[in-house]
Amino acid sequence: MDRSVGVIGAGQLARMMVAPAIELGIPIRILAEAAGAPATVTANTVGDFHDEQTVMDFARGVDVVTFDHEHVPQAILQAVEAAGVHVRPGSAALHFAQDKLAMRERMSELGLPVPDWAAVRTRDEVAQFLAGHHGRAVVKLPVGGYDGHGVRFIDSADEVADWMTETMRSEFPRGVLIEEAVPFRRELSQLSARRPSGEFRAWDLAESVQRDGVCVEVVAPAPGASAQLAAEAAAIAREVAEALDVVGVLAVELFEAEDGRLLINELAMRPHNTGHWTMDGAVTGQFEQHLRAVLDVPLGETRRTGAAVAMVNVLGGPKNAWETARADALALDPEAKLHWYDKTYRPGRKVGHVNVVSAAGASDALSRAVRVARALEAEKLGEIG
Amino acid sequence: MDRSVGVIGAGQLARMMVAPAIELGIPIRILAEAAGAPATVTANTVGDFHDEQTVMDFARGVDVVTFDHEHVPQAILQAVEAAGVHVRPGSAALHFAQDKLAMRERMSELGLPVPDWAAVRTRDEVAQFLAGHHGRAVVKLPVGGYDGHGVRFIDSADEVADWMTETMRSEFPRGVLIEEAVPFRRELSQLSARRPSGEFRAWDLAESVQRDGVCVEVVAPAPGASAQLAAEAAAIAREVAEALDVVGVLAVELFEAEDGRLLINELAMRPHNTGHWTMDGAVTGQFEQHLRAVLDVPLGETRRTGAAVAMVNVLGGPKNAWETARADALALDPEAKLHWYDKTYRPGRKVGHVNVVSAAGASDALSRAVRVARALEAEKLGEIG
Repeated sequence: MDRSVGVIGAGQLARMMVAPAIELGIPIRILAEAAGAPATVTANTVGDFHDEQTVMDFARGVDVVTFDHEHVPQAILQAVEAAGVHVRPGSAALHFAQDKLAMRERMSELGLPVPDWAAVRTRDEVAQFLAGHHGRAVVKLPVGGYDGHGVRFIDSADEVADWMTETMRSEFPRGVLIEEAVPFRRELSQLSARRPSGEFRAWDLAESVQRDGVCVEVVAPAPGASAQLAAEAAAIAREVAEALDVVGVLAVELFEAEDGRLLINELAMRPHNTGHWTMDGAVTGQFEQHLRAVLDVPLGETRRTGAAVAMVNVLGGPKNAWETARADALALDPEAKLHWYDKTYRPGRKVGHVNVVSAAGASDALSRAVRVARALEAEKLGEIG
Repeated sequence: MDRSVGVIGAGQLARMMVAPAIELGIPIRILAEAAGAPATVTANTVGDFHDEQTVMDFARGVDVVTFDHEHVPQAILQAVEAAGVHVRPGSAALHFAQDKLAMRERMSELGLPVPDWAAVRTRDEVAQFLAGHHGRAVVKLPVGGYDGHGVRFIDSADEVADWMTETMRSEFPRGVLIEEAVPFRRELSQLSARRPSGEFRAWDLAESVQRDGVCVEVVAPAPGASAQLAAEAAAIAREVAEALDVVGVLAVELFEAEDGRLLINELAMRPHNTGHWTMDGAVTGQFEQHLRAVLDVPLGETRRTGAAVAMVNVLGGPKNAWETARADALALDPEAKLHWYDKTYRPGRKVGHVNVVSAAGASDALSRAVRVARALEAEKLGEIG
């Protein structure tokens, strides 16, 4: 039976796997980009995940390889699999989290609901798509985008002229992805997990609020969501997980369109920002569940521990006197649960998050979590009341 | 403001501080007795806590020193304090957790309820105490006992003849502790925490079941405890914490005597086995609270997260195939929360614990936690159904 887990990447997602690994008695080892990265609080190796030998050496020291991010090249993933180490999720599944064009194509083949889309290589193709979609679209690089980078909302082909070049065509031979800019009521996230042996468990459907392409707030359960909507989202997640043979946590980000359609936006095959609420708000948090799933250990119960749960990201601050800011912030609400990533200051950077579980409902949970998170962003003491 | 915490001792209590330290962004460092000890999952130094220079070097690298156990000699604690490092709890408070005779004396001075007791140095004194207490008593070494070691229930002075020697008298000049063997309905534990600045929070009163002097099960809240009993226990804890200037988690182990008295049995000034239920069963667990307290950060809410919580220790097993036993055990109950200490097998040794939070009450929580814990003790697969 598999015993130890190696995580490629040492960001906050890897860091948050460490606590449940300790409690469950799972030996965990991190392949870190750099010394001092968030997950280097436990056993780690510093090395470049673009280097096949580095990844292979790391992988041979553990039973299962999993990920903090989806940036490890396919050739390396396949080499590790060929060497007999379990890679979970596997390269074949990860392909669809790495390549948005392949993902859209596969979702369409499965008959799952997605925005209208096309692969475009020329300005004419962009213009043609725009003409068919009320002159508005979103264009995405198939690979390498994150948190709003590599994504543009356009109403003219000129705005992506720099992506319609020979250079880009050689980097992305099939072109880039263009999609209808879905007018949506809100964004939702359906988090789930699946084991190699097939067990599947979904958490409650959550609502996520993005600002400038960055997740800022999540509330679970998604306020006002009907049982039918929740069941539909869970069924989509299950079909994606099974059809793509996803192992571990799967986040399906969805649009609830103004016309009522539930459409798949993005897939992530790892713990996800929209699932951080589960750490304090569900019987089993996503980081524990991911470890159980990739080791093929029976999954934990996913039900909520309270009426409503809110997660609010801490973005940017504090620049200085972090320990004092933490004390001030925690003094505001003794029920607030803080998760800190130990990252250096950069404006707008995700440096931590706050969860609040409330018996009084979503707006209470959210306003309280916002208050604590804002206190942690205050750059000067005394900025918050 | 204090930033980093150093923990002397690398057993399971130190290990379970690591997860909340990571989440709260607290740099934590362990002084371990040996490489591979449970808490060596994070930054650590291997060294002997009986050696003043070792402890001093370790202490100088952190802002606050705290403990996995109470065995660090007073002279060393005082030297570290004199060097200006915060020792929490401090040496003056720890004295009463280290020396049972001093503790009994201080509790009596404070007018707090304790069993009848005396310090005895001779067989005649033992015989005299027995004569005054229906011929039954319990005798304890003032220092160095744990989990039933150094404790004897007697009905004749002969049974502690080996403790009434000149050698023992030179080791324990004030003698050993003799107490009435309290006929009790049950044992209770009142867990609380206190910050240097005075903030105090208590968790629910819990019932603990000991077997052969070892804690095996804990249920919170203590079934059938009246509000008055609970308030009385919390008031005792607060008075102990304040009078002794305890900082960090304080466990007050109590007898609920057959005659209705609530009597202090033992004190521990650190997270305690009878508080493990708080890890999953309260908004703030004892390990997080201990770190907040010793850093003088505002304390977290202590209320329960469900109707009843049970904690059951895993004692001894499994000898082999631990990963398979874990999978089998977790399959029995998806709500069971496992905490594993990564200790080598020894019969009866505490190697982990299982928490279950139940909406259906104490007996449901307990029977479920027992089932999972027993599965983890099975030495051969297939022993459990």
